[in-house]
Amino acid sequence: MALTFYDYTLAPSPRRARIFLAEKGVEYENVQVDLGAKEQLSEAFRAINPACTVPALRLEDGTVLTENDGIAAYLEAAYPEPPLLGVTATEKGLVANWNSRALLEGLSAVAEILRNTSKGMVGRATTGPIDFEQIPQLAERGRVRLTAFMDTLNTRLKGREFLAIDTFSYADITAMVVVDFAKWVKVEPQDNHTDLKRWHAAVAARPSAKA
Amino acid sequence: MALTFYDYTLAPSPRRARIFLAEKGVEYENVQVDLGAKEQLSEAFRAINPACTVPALRLEDGTVLTENDGIAAYLEAAYPEPPLLGVTATEKGLVANWNSRALLEGLSAVAEILRNTSKGMVGRATTGPIDFEQIPQLAERGRVRLTAFMDTLNTRLKGREFLAIDTFSYADITAMVVVDFAKWVKVEPQDNHTDLKRWHAAVAARPSAKA
Repeated sequence: MALTFYDYTLAPSPRRARIFLAEKGVEYENVQVDLGAKEQLSEAFRAINPACTVPALRLEDGTVLTENDGIAAYLEAAYPEPPLLGVTATEKGLVANWNSRALLEGLSAVAEILRNTSKGMVGRATTGPIDFEQIPQLAERGRVRLTAFMDTLNTRLKGREFLAIDTFSYADITAMVVVDFAKWVKVEPQDNHTDLKRWHAAVAARPSAKA
Repeated sequence: MALTFYDYTLAPSPRRARIFLAEKGVEYENVQVDLGAKEQLSEAFRAINPACTVPALRLEDGTVLTENDGIAAYLEAAYPEPPLLGVTATEKGLVANWNSRALLEGLSAVAEILRNTSKGMVGRATTGPIDFEQIPQLAERGRVRLTAFMDTLNTRLKGREFLAIDTFSYADITAMVVVDFAKWVKVEPQDNHTDLKRWHAAVAARPSAKA
């Protein structure tokens, strides 16, 4: 198999890449890295990704991509159909723009809440090889940021089928993962987030969402 | 002029886009948004970018891109030469990968240090429309993260002219901005970071670095 994908099915970050792979219909070898057992910190996995994170995608030539954006850029160029990063220049700009917002305003906010409050993450408040203590104030801030991002998503989705452009894109993948990951910290779209809920139901119904 | 660029010359984030524009040789109208005077929070600028951040790039059709990744993706497609996001699939993956690492491990660490310690940022510990109090512990954590990222850069640059691929790329831009921004918080490459210093001297000597 040309591609080896280092994954952990329960975690939100590798899910972004897994959905991307599924939308492209790409075949790959799946290797589970058990984050629950701290396998990402093992010597064996450090040899693959010294940053001790999943996802990681090893290409046929041995190159290892360790970031969702890197994996997405590679897959889009190697497997152009269906396009998930936009086709025109403006579309490409909008997809990258909304993916970035979903990551920085959404996913990072959920991670701040979870990693700085979860008992299982005491002393492990960030991903990666360095151990950091939890910062409860950061979890509080994350909750405010996440709520604001849900509002941003709902406003953007008014009258739109998809988040960034007229077709399903990487931005929808990242934002869907934000909304699903937010359930872990008991944050859900509010009653008045009707556009957000409509969009989420539609993207969650795609086969790739179950990948 | 087809493109309007909302900028603040002193700030690191718009500098990333400014260097990208300079490398492409793209002409644009430059509008300074005075962050020192909190102009980004004004009603006038909120009408352009409700997220109250620079950079922002307004396209001819009125679309406004508010994230560096969005601006870079647009410019690469609209002005393909010289390529700054890689040419082959593997190159595109590597550029996006190292840009992402420079942003998440480097630039965000410097911002955590600065925004959570600077007297001028009391009550303004994040960018954007919401005011947050400073979290001193986050600055301490940022200092550890930034030092680790300088090590990561130095290791990666051993035997390499550029960070991600064999030619200058967006990843070099982001990482150069990290190293220069780090001086604001008195973190510099260490004596043994010989590869990092060699690379930095070379990229800092490009005309675009002064854009």
